[in-house]
Amino acid sequence: MTIYTVFVEPKTSGNIGFLARCMKNFGLKKLILIKPCKLKDDAYYQAMHAKELVENAQIYETLDEFIEDKQITQTIATTGTPGGSYNIPRIPITASQMGEKINPEKQNIALLFGREGDGLSNEELEKCDTLVTIPTSEEYPIMNITHAASIIFYEIYKNTQKTYPIDDMDIADYEDKQVLNQAIDEITQKLDYPDYKQKQVNILAKRIIGRAFITGRELRTMRGLLNRINKRIENKQEE
Amino acid sequence: MTIYTVFVEPKTSGNIGFLARCMKNFGLKKLILIKPCKLKDDAYYQAMHAKELVENAQIYETLDEFIEDKQITQTIATTGTPGGSYNIPRIPITASQMGEKINPEKQNIALLFGREGDGLSNEELEKCDTLVTIPTSEEYPIMNITHAASIIFYEIYKNTQKTYPIDDMDIADYEDKQVLNQAIDEITQKLDYPDYKQKQVNILAKRIIGRAFITGRELRTMRGLLNRINKRIENKQEE
Repeated sequence: MTIYTVFVEPKTSGNIGFLARCMKNFGLKKLILIKPCKLKDDAYYQAMHAKELVENAQIYETLDEFIEDKQITQTIATTGTPGGSYNIPRIPITASQMGEKINPEKQNIALLFGREGDGLSNEELEKCDTLVTIPTSEEYPIMNITHAASIIFYEIYKNTQKTYPIDDMDIADYEDKQVLNQAIDEITQKLDYPDYKQKQVNILAKRIIGRAFITGRELRTMRGLLNRINKRIENKQEE
Repeated sequence: MTIYTVFVEPKTSGNIGFLARCMKNFGLKKLILIKPCKLKDDAYYQAMHAKELVENAQIYETLDEFIEDKQITQTIATTGTPGGSYNIPRIPITASQMGEKINPEKQNIALLFGREGDGLSNEELEKCDTLVTIPTSEEYPIMNITHAASIIFYEIYKNTQKTYPIDDMDIADYEDKQVLNQAIDEITQKLDYPDYKQKQVNILAKRIIGRAFITGRELRTMRGLLNRINKRIENKQEE
Protein backbone atom coordinates (compact mmCIF):
# COMPACT_ATOMS: atom_id res chain seq x y z
CA MET A 1 0.00 0.00 0.00
CA THR A 2 1.31 3.38 -1.00
CA ILE A 3 0.88 7.13 -1.03
CA TYR A 4 0.99 8.64 -4.52
CA THR A 5 1.59 12.35 -5.02
CA VAL A 6 -0.33 13.46 -8.08
CA PHE A 7 0.43 16.76 -9.82
CA VAL A 8 -2.44 17.54 -12.20
CA GLU A 9 -1.38 19.43 -15.34
CA PRO A 10 1.71 21.15 -13.94
CA LYS A 11 2.51 24.28 -15.94
CA THR A 12 5.96 25.08 -14.54
CA SER A 13 8.68 22.48 -14.82
CA GLY A 14 10.54 23.86 -11.79
CA ASN A 15 7.52 23.24 -9.55
CA ILE A 16 7.73 19.53 -10.39
CA GLY A 17 11.28 19.59 -9.01
CA PHE A 18 10.29 21.48 -5.86
CA LEU A 19 7.45 19.03 -5.30
CA ALA A 20 9.80 16.05 -5.68
CA ARG A 21 12.18 17.51 -3.09
CA CYS A 22 9.34 18.10 -0.60
CA MET A 23 8.13 14.54 -1.18
CA LYS A 24 11.51 13.02 -0.40
CA ASN A 25 11.93 15.26 2.66
CA PHE A 26 8.87 13.49 4.07
CA GLY A 27 9.63 10.00 2.79
CA LEU A 28 7.25 9.98 -0.19
CA LYS A 29 8.56 8.34 -3.35
CA LYS A 30 5.79 7.93 -5.93
CA LEU A 31 5.27 10.97 -8.16
CA ILE A 32 2.46 10.92 -10.72
CA LEU A 33 2.09 13.59 -13.39
CA ILE A 34 -1.21 14.06 -15.22
CA LYS A 35 -0.78 15.69 -18.64
CA PRO A 36 2.33 17.64 -17.52
CA CYS A 37 4.21 20.47 -19.22
CA LYS A 38 7.54 19.56 -20.82
CA LEU A 39 10.09 18.59 -18.15
CA LYS A 40 13.04 21.00 -18.49
CA ASP A 41 16.36 21.04 -16.64
CA ASP A 42 14.91 23.04 -13.75
CA ALA A 43 12.64 20.10 -12.85
CA TYR A 44 15.79 18.13 -12.04
CA TYR A 45 17.73 21.11 -10.69
CA GLN A 46 15.04 22.16 -8.18
CA ALA A 47 14.60 18.55 -7.07
CA MET A 48 18.16 18.67 -5.69
CA HIS A 49 18.75 15.22 -4.13
CA ALA A 50 15.29 14.00 -5.19
CA LYS A 51 16.10 13.88 -8.94
CA GLU A 52 15.27 10.15 -9.09
CA LEU A 53 11.67 10.92 -8.11
CA VAL A 54 11.34 13.11 -11.21
CA GLU A 55 13.12 10.52 -13.38
CA ASN A 56 10.80 7.79 -12.11
CA ALA A 57 7.65 9.91 -12.27
CA GLN A 58 4.77 8.11 -14.02
CA ILE A 59 2.77 10.10 -16.54
CA TYR A 60 -0.95 9.64 -17.31
CA GLU A 61 -3.25 11.40 -19.74
CA THR A 62 -6.19 11.55 -17.32
CA LEU A 63 -6.84 11.35 -13.59
CA ASP A 64 -9.29 8.47 -14.13
CA GLU A 65 -6.66 6.33 -15.91
CA PHE A 66 -4.31 6.75 -12.96
CA ILE A 67 -6.97 6.03 -10.32
CA GLU A 68 -8.00 2.84 -12.09
CA ASP A 69 -4.45 1.72 -12.93
CA LYS A 70 -3.18 2.05 -9.35
CA GLN A 71 -6.39 0.87 -7.69
CA ILE A 72 -6.61 3.99 -5.55
CA THR A 73 -8.80 3.54 -2.47
CA GLN A 74 -8.56 7.07 -1.05
CA THR A 75 -8.34 10.21 -3.16
CA ILE A 76 -7.38 13.33 -1.23
CA ALA A 77 -7.40 16.75 -2.86
CA THR A 78 -6.14 20.03 -1.47
CA THR A 79 -8.02 23.20 -2.25
CA GLY A 80 -6.86 26.72 -1.51
CA THR A 81 -10.41 28.00 -1.84
CA PRO A 82 -12.60 25.98 0.52
CA GLY A 83 -16.32 26.48 -0.14
CA GLY A 84 -18.76 27.22 2.62
CA SER A 85 -21.38 24.65 3.57
CA TYR A 86 -23.39 25.94 0.59
CA ASN A 87 -20.83 24.45 -1.76
CA ILE A 88 -20.94 20.73 -1.07
CA PRO A 89 -18.19 19.63 -3.48
CA ARG A 90 -15.80 21.95 -1.64
CA ILE A 91 -16.44 21.26 2.07
CA PRO A 92 -12.95 20.40 3.40
CA ILE A 93 -11.27 19.05 6.52
CA THR A 94 -8.07 20.66 7.81
CA ALA A 95 -4.61 19.33 7.02
CA SER A 96 -4.12 18.19 10.61
CA GLN A 97 -7.48 16.40 10.69
CA MET A 98 -6.43 14.63 7.50
CA GLY A 99 -3.05 13.74 9.00
CA GLU A 100 -4.70 12.15 12.03
CA LYS A 101 -7.14 10.11 9.95
CA ILE A 102 -4.91 8.90 7.13
CA ASN A 103 -3.76 5.29 7.16
CA PRO A 104 -1.27 4.49 4.39
CA GLU A 105 -0.75 0.92 5.61
CA LYS A 106 -4.25 -0.06 4.64
CA GLN A 107 -4.84 2.02 1.54
CA ASN A 108 -3.60 3.21 -1.82
CA ILE A 109 -3.78 6.95 -1.26
CA ALA A 110 -3.57 9.65 -3.91
CA LEU A 111 -2.71 13.20 -2.85
CA LEU A 112 -3.90 15.52 -5.61
CA PHE A 113 -2.41 18.93 -6.30
CA GLY A 114 -4.01 21.10 -8.94
CA ARG A 115 -2.61 23.24 -11.70
CA GLU A 116 -0.70 26.31 -10.59
CA GLY A 117 -3.08 29.24 -10.45
CA ASP A 118 -6.30 27.46 -11.43
CA GLY A 119 -6.13 24.54 -8.98
CA LEU A 120 -8.42 21.55 -9.44
CA SER A 121 -11.72 21.80 -11.29
CA ASN A 122 -15.04 21.18 -9.52
CA GLU A 123 -15.36 18.03 -11.63
CA GLU A 124 -12.01 16.77 -10.34
CA LEU A 125 -12.86 17.73 -6.75
CA GLU A 126 -16.10 15.78 -6.98
CA LYS A 127 -14.09 12.62 -7.80
CA CYS A 128 -12.20 12.97 -4.51
CA ASP A 129 -13.01 11.16 -1.28
CA THR A 130 -11.57 13.86 0.94
CA LEU A 131 -10.95 17.58 0.52
CA VAL A 132 -8.21 19.14 2.61
CA THR A 133 -7.60 22.79 3.27
CA ILE A 134 -4.74 24.54 5.03
CA PRO A 135 -5.86 27.28 7.41
CA THR A 136 -4.42 30.52 6.03
CA SER A 137 -4.86 34.27 6.39
CA GLU A 138 -8.01 35.59 4.71
CA GLU A 139 -5.93 38.49 3.44
CA TYR A 140 -3.89 36.17 1.19
CA PRO A 141 -5.08 32.54 1.33
CA ILE A 142 -3.56 31.30 -1.94
CA MET A 143 -0.31 29.43 -1.26
CA ASN A 144 2.32 28.44 -3.75
CA ILE A 145 1.44 24.84 -4.70
CA THR A 146 4.68 23.22 -3.47
CA HIS A 147 4.53 25.11 -0.15
CA ALA A 148 0.98 23.87 0.35
CA ALA A 149 2.12 20.36 -0.56
CA SER A 150 4.98 20.46 1.96
CA ILE A 151 2.46 21.19 4.74
CA ILE A 152 0.23 18.29 3.65
CA PHE A 153 3.25 15.94 3.51
CA TYR A 154 4.40 17.23 6.89
CA GLU A 155 1.04 16.55 8.57
CA ILE A 156 0.98 13.02 7.13
CA TYR A 157 4.60 12.35 8.10
CA LYS A 158 4.06 13.76 11.60
CA ASN A 159 1.16 11.41 12.16
CA THR A 160 2.50 8.28 10.49
CA GLN A 161 6.00 8.58 11.98
CA LYS A 162 6.23 7.48 15.55
CA THR A 163 9.66 8.98 16.19
CA TYR A 164 10.59 12.65 16.07
CA PRO A 165 14.19 13.80 16.35
CA ILE A 166 13.49 14.81 19.93
CA ASP A 167 12.04 11.39 20.68
CA ASP A 168 15.33 9.82 19.69
CA MET A 169 17.02 11.79 22.44
CA ASP A 170 17.08 10.62 26.01
CA ILE A 171 14.30 12.66 27.55
CA ALA A 172 14.82 12.99 31.28
CA ASP A 173 12.81 10.34 33.07
CA TYR A 174 10.87 10.57 36.31
CA GLU A 175 13.70 9.50 38.63
CA ASP A 176 16.16 11.87 36.95
CA LYS A 177 13.78 14.74 37.56
CA GLN A 178 13.22 13.72 41.17
CA VAL A 179 16.97 13.86 41.75
CA LEU A 180 17.14 17.30 40.16
CA ASN A 181 14.24 18.62 42.22
CA GLN A 182 15.91 17.23 45.32
CA ALA A 183 19.16 19.01 44.47
CA ILE A 184 17.23 22.27 44.06
CA ASP A 185 15.51 21.69 47.38
CA GLU A 186 18.84 21.10 49.14
CA ILE A 187 20.13 24.43 47.86
CA THR A 188 17.04 26.49 48.58
CA GLN A 189 16.93 25.07 52.12
CA LYS A 190 20.24 26.80 52.79
CA LEU A 191 19.20 30.20 51.46
CA ASP A 192 17.22 31.47 54.46
CA TYR A 193 13.89 31.52 52.64
CA PRO A 194 10.75 31.48 54.74
CA ASP A 195 9.31 27.94 54.46
CA TYR A 196 6.35 28.91 52.27
CA LYS A 197 8.65 30.86 49.94
CA GLN A 198 11.19 28.06 49.69
CA LYS A 199 8.40 25.70 48.74
CA GLN A 200 7.24 28.18 46.06
CA VAL A 201 10.74 28.46 44.63
CA ASN A 202 11.06 24.68 44.42
CA ILE A 203 7.72 24.32 42.68
CA LEU A 204 8.60 27.09 40.25
CA ALA A 205 11.96 25.55 39.35
CA LYS A 206 10.24 22.19 38.90
CA ARG A 207 7.64 23.79 36.60
CA ILE A 208 10.21 25.52 34.42
CA ILE A 209 12.18 22.30 34.00
CA GLY A 210 8.96 20.45 33.23
CA ARG A 211 7.96 22.89 30.52
CA ALA A 212 11.38 22.88 28.87
CA PHE A 213 11.28 19.30 27.50
CA ILE A 214 14.64 18.84 29.26
CA THR A 215 16.77 15.97 28.00
CA GLY A 216 18.78 13.52 30.09
CA ARG A 217 22.05 15.11 28.98
CA GLU A 218 20.85 18.59 29.88
CA LEU A 219 19.57 17.30 33.19
CA ARG A 220 22.91 15.75 34.07
CA THR A 221 24.66 19.02 33.25
CA MET A 222 22.16 20.93 35.38
CA ARG A 223 22.67 18.45 38.21
CA GLY A 224 26.43 18.98 37.94
CA LEU A 225 25.87 22.72 38.20
CA LEU A 226 23.60 22.36 41.22
CA ASN A 227 26.06 20.05 42.94
CA ARG A 228 28.85 22.59 42.48
CA ILE A 229 26.63 25.32 43.89
CA ASN A 230 25.45 23.13 46.75
CA LYS A 231 29.01 22.20 47.69
CA ARG A 232 30.13 25.83 47.67
CA ILE A 233 27.34 26.88 49.98
CA GLU A 234 28.07 23.91 52.24
CA ASN A 235 31.76 24.80 52.40
CA LYS A 236 30.81 28.30 53.40
CA GLN A 237 28.67 27.04 56.25
CA GLU A 238 31.31 24.63 57.49
CA GLU A 239 33.75 27.48 57.96
CA MET B 1 4.18 42.77 20.26
CA THR B 2 5.15 41.20 16.97
CA ILE B 3 6.59 38.23 15.15
CA TYR B 4 9.56 39.14 12.97
CA THR B 5 10.70 36.79 10.23
CA VAL B 6 14.46 37.10 9.92
CA PHE B 7 16.32 35.85 6.85
CA VAL B 8 20.04 35.74 7.67
CA GLU B 9 22.29 36.45 4.69
CA PRO B 10 19.93 35.30 1.91
CA LYS B 11 21.89 34.32 -1.18
CA THR B 12 19.06 33.99 -3.68
CA SER B 13 16.81 36.96 -4.30
CA GLY B 14 13.90 34.75 -5.37
CA ASN B 15 13.85 33.00 -2.00
CA ILE B 16 13.19 36.34 -0.32
CA GLY B 17 10.06 36.62 -2.48
CA PHE B 18 8.92 33.06 -1.73
CA LEU B 19 9.45 33.71 1.98
CA ALA B 20 7.39 36.93 1.83
CA ARG B 21 4.51 35.09 0.16
CA CYS B 22 4.56 32.31 2.79
CA MET B 23 4.60 34.98 5.51
CA LYS B 24 1.53 36.75 4.16
CA ASN B 25 -0.29 33.42 3.66
CA PHE B 26 -0.05 33.02 7.44
CA GLY B 27 -0.64 36.62 8.43
CA LEU B 28 2.99 37.58 9.12
CA LYS B 29 4.04 41.05 7.97
CA LYS B 30 7.48 41.97 9.34
CA LEU B 31 10.38 40.80 7.19
CA ILE B 32 13.93 41.42 8.39
CA LEU B 33 16.97 40.82 6.18
CA ILE B 34 20.44 40.48 7.70
CA LYS B 35 23.20 41.34 5.21
CA PRO B 36 21.12 40.19 2.22
CA CYS B 37 22.11 39.62 -1.40
CA LYS B 38 21.03 42.27 -3.92
CA LEU B 39 17.22 42.24 -4.30
CA LYS B 40 16.46 41.55 -7.96
CA ASP B 41 13.11 41.48 -9.78
CA ASP B 42 12.45 37.86 -8.84
CA ALA B 43 12.26 38.86 -5.15
CA TYR B 44 9.15 40.88 -6.05
CA TYR B 45 7.91 38.45 -8.70
CA GLN B 46 8.00 35.37 -6.43
CA ALA B 47 6.33 37.34 -3.63
CA MET B 48 3.21 37.56 -5.84
CA HIS B 49 0.63 39.45 -3.74
CA ALA B 50 3.11 39.92 -0.88
CA LYS B 51 5.35 42.40 -2.73
CA GLU B 52 4.83 45.06 -0.05
CA LEU B 53 6.48 42.79 2.53
CA VAL B 54 9.65 42.80 0.42
CA GLU B 55 9.39 46.55 -0.19
CA ASN B 56 8.99 47.19 3.55
CA ALA B 57 11.69 44.69 4.60
CA GLN B 58 14.12 46.15 7.13
CA ILE B 59 17.79 45.46 6.58
CA TYR B 60 20.44 45.10 9.31
CA GLU B 61 24.16 44.46 9.13
CA THR B 62 24.20 42.05 12.07
CA LEU B 63 21.77 39.84 13.98
CA ASP B 64 22.74 41.54 17.26
CA GLU B 65 21.80 45.00 15.94
CA PHE B 66 18.34 43.71 15.02
CA ILE B 67 17.76 41.88 18.33
CA GLU B 68 18.67 44.98 20.32
CA ASP B 69 16.84 47.44 18.07
CA LYS B 70 13.54 45.52 18.17
CA GLN B 71 13.90 44.42 21.81
CA ILE B 72 13.41 40.77 20.90
CA THR B 73 12.29 38.64 23.85
CA GLN B 74 12.19 35.23 22.19
CA THR B 75 14.63 34.20 19.47
CA ILE B 76 13.59 31.03 17.68
CA ALA B 77 15.87 29.38 15.14
CA THR B 78 15.09 26.49 12.85
CA THR B 79 17.78 23.93 12.22
CA GLY B 80 17.67 21.23 9.58
CA THR B 81 20.39 19.32 11.40
CA PRO B 82 19.31 18.83 14.99
CA GLY B 83 22.12 17.66 17.23
CA GLY B 84 21.69 14.63 19.38
CA SER B 85 21.44 15.09 23.13
CA TYR B 86 25.26 15.13 23.16
CA ASN B 87 25.25 18.46 21.28
CA ILE B 88 23.82 20.95 23.73
CA PRO B 89 23.72 24.03 21.48
CA ARG B 90 21.59 22.07 19.00
CA ILE B 91 18.94 20.35 21.12
CA PRO B 92 15.63 21.28 19.43
CA ILE B 93 11.92 21.03 20.06
CA THR B 94 9.57 20.11 17.22
CA ALA B 95 7.66 22.66 15.14
CA SER B 96 4.36 21.59 16.71
CA GLN B 97 5.74 21.84 20.25
CA MET B 98 6.90 25.37 19.39
CA GLY B 99 3.52 26.23 17.90
CA GLU B 100 1.72 25.14 21.04
CA LYS B 101 3.89 27.28 23.33
CA ILE B 102 4.46 30.43 21.34
CA ASN B 103 2.65 33.56 22.47
CA PRO B 104 3.01 36.46 20.02
CA GLU B 105 0.61 38.70 21.95
CA LYS B 106 3.03 39.10 24.80
CA GLN B 107 6.40 38.89 23.10
CA ASN B 108 8.65 40.26 20.39
CA ILE B 109 9.47 37.03 18.62
CA ALA B 110 12.16 36.56 16.00
CA LEU B 111 11.93 33.54 13.69
CA LEU B 112 15.41 32.99 12.26
CA PHE B 113 16.08 31.29 8.95
CA GLY B 114 19.68 30.68 7.93
CA ARG B 115 21.52 31.10 4.66
CA GLU B 116 20.50 28.71 1.90
CA GLY B 117 22.74 25.67 2.02
CA ASP B 118 24.84 26.58 5.05
CA GLY B 119 22.04 27.42 7.49
CA LEU B 120 22.82 29.24 10.73
CA SER B 121 26.27 29.11 12.34
CA ASN B 122 26.76 27.56 15.76
CA GLU B 123 27.53 31.04 17.02
CA GLU B 124 24.15 32.27 15.75
CA LEU B 125 22.37 29.22 17.16
CA GLU B 126 23.92 29.88 20.56
CA LYS B 127 22.27 33.32 20.58
CA CYS B 128 18.82 31.73 20.26
CA ASP B 129 16.41 30.96 23.08
CA THR B 130 14.71 28.10 21.29
CA LEU B 131 15.73 25.72 18.53
CA VAL B 132 13.03 24.19 16.38
CA THR B 133 13.29 21.24 14.05
CA ILE B 134 10.84 19.83 11.52
CA PRO B 135 10.62 16.04 11.63
CA THR B 136 11.78 14.84 8.20
CA SER B 137 12.93 11.65 6.52
CA GLU B 138 16.47 10.62 7.48
CA GLU B 139 17.07 9.79 3.83
CA TYR B 140 16.78 13.47 2.85
CA PRO B 141 16.27 15.76 5.86
CA ILE B 142 17.38 19.05 4.28
CA MET B 143 14.35 21.09 3.19
CA ASN B 144 14.30 24.09 0.92
CA ILE B 145 14.41 27.08 3.29
CA THR B 146 11.06 28.61 2.27
CA HIS B 147 9.29 25.26 2.48
CA ALA B 148 10.65 24.79 5.99
CA ALA B 149 9.55 28.33 6.85
CA SER B 150 6.01 27.72 5.60
CA ILE B 151 5.68 24.78 8.02
CA ILE B 152 6.92 26.90 10.93
CA PHE B 153 4.48 29.71 9.99
CA TYR B 154 1.69 27.15 9.62
CA GLU B 155 2.25 25.67 13.08
CA ILE B 156 2.27 29.13 14.63
CA TYR B 157 -0.83 30.25 12.70
CA LYS B 158 -2.70 27.04 13.58
CA ASN B 159 -2.02 27.54 17.27
CA THR B 160 -2.42 31.30 17.60
CA GLN B 161 -5.95 31.00 16.25
CA LYS B 162 -6.80 29.65 19.71
CA THR B 163 -6.18 31.20 23.11
CA TYR B 164 -3.97 29.75 25.79
CA PRO B 165 -3.77 29.94 29.57
CA ILE B 166 -0.33 31.45 29.11
CA ASP B 167 -1.93 34.43 27.33
CA ASP B 168 -2.93 35.87 30.68
CA MET B 169 0.58 35.75 32.05
CA ASP B 170 3.19 38.49 31.84
CA ILE B 171 5.92 37.10 29.65
CA ALA B 172 9.50 38.00 30.61
CA ASP B 173 10.77 40.94 28.57
CA TYR B 174 14.11 41.58 26.89
CA GLU B 175 15.96 43.27 29.80
CA ASP B 176 14.63 40.71 32.29
CA LYS B 177 16.14 37.89 30.28
CA GLN B 178 19.45 39.70 29.81
CA VAL B 179 19.68 40.21 33.58
CA LEU B 180 18.86 36.56 34.25
CA ASN B 181 21.46 35.27 31.79
CA GLN B 182 23.99 37.66 33.36
CA ALA B 183 23.17 36.36 36.86
CA ILE B 184 23.68 32.78 35.66
CA ASP B 185 27.00 33.76 34.07
CA GLU B 186 28.18 35.46 37.29
CA ILE B 187 27.51 32.27 39.24
CA THR B 188 29.03 29.83 36.78
CA GLN B 189 32.13 32.02 36.54
CA LYS B 190 32.80 31.25 40.19
CA LEU B 191 32.43 27.50 39.94
CA ASP B 192 35.83 26.57 38.50
CA TYR B 193 34.45 25.32 35.18
CA PRO B 194 36.83 25.16 32.23
CA ASP B 195 35.91 28.12 29.96
CA TYR B 196 34.32 26.01 27.21
CA LYS B 197 32.27 24.13 29.80
CA GLN B 198 31.13 27.30 31.57
CA LYS B 199 29.97 28.67 28.22
CA GLN B 200 28.07 25.42 27.55
CA VAL B 201 26.39 25.58 30.96
CA ASN B 202 25.30 29.18 30.31
CA ILE B 203 23.88 28.32 26.89
CA LEU B 204 22.07 25.34 28.35
CA ALA B 205 20.49 27.37 31.16
CA LYS B 206 19.47 30.05 28.63
CA ARG B 207 17.91 27.39 26.39
CA ILE B 208 15.96 25.71 29.18
CA ILE B 209 14.56 29.11 30.17
CA GLY B 210 13.83 29.89 26.52
CA ARG B 211 12.05 26.61 25.93
CA ALA B 212 9.99 27.03 29.09
CA PHE B 213 8.53 30.34 27.81
CA ILE B 214 9.10 31.72 31.30
CA THR B 215 6.83 34.46 32.65
CA GLY B 216 7.96 37.75 34.23
CA ARG B 217 6.82 36.59 37.66
CA GLU B 218 8.74 33.33 37.36
CA LEU B 219 11.76 35.17 36.08
CA ARG B 220 11.80 37.61 39.00
CA THR B 221 11.61 34.70 41.44
CA MET B 222 14.43 32.94 39.60
CA ARG B 223 16.50 36.11 39.70
CA GLY B 224 15.93 36.35 43.44
CA LEU B 225 17.11 32.76 43.82
CA LEU B 226 20.20 33.36 41.70
CA ASN B 227 21.06 36.52 43.64
CA ARG B 228 20.89 34.63 46.93
CA ILE B 229 23.11 31.89 45.52
CA ASN B 230 25.53 34.38 43.99
CA LYS B 231 25.83 36.29 47.27
CA ARG B 232 26.51 33.12 49.23
CA ILE B 233 29.28 32.03 46.92
CA GLU B 234 30.74 35.55 47.01
CA ASN B 235 30.73 35.57 50.80
CA LYS B 236 32.53 32.26 50.79
CA GLN B 237 35.28 33.63 48.56
CA GLU B 238 35.69 36.80 50.56
CA GLU B 239 36.59 34.82 53.67
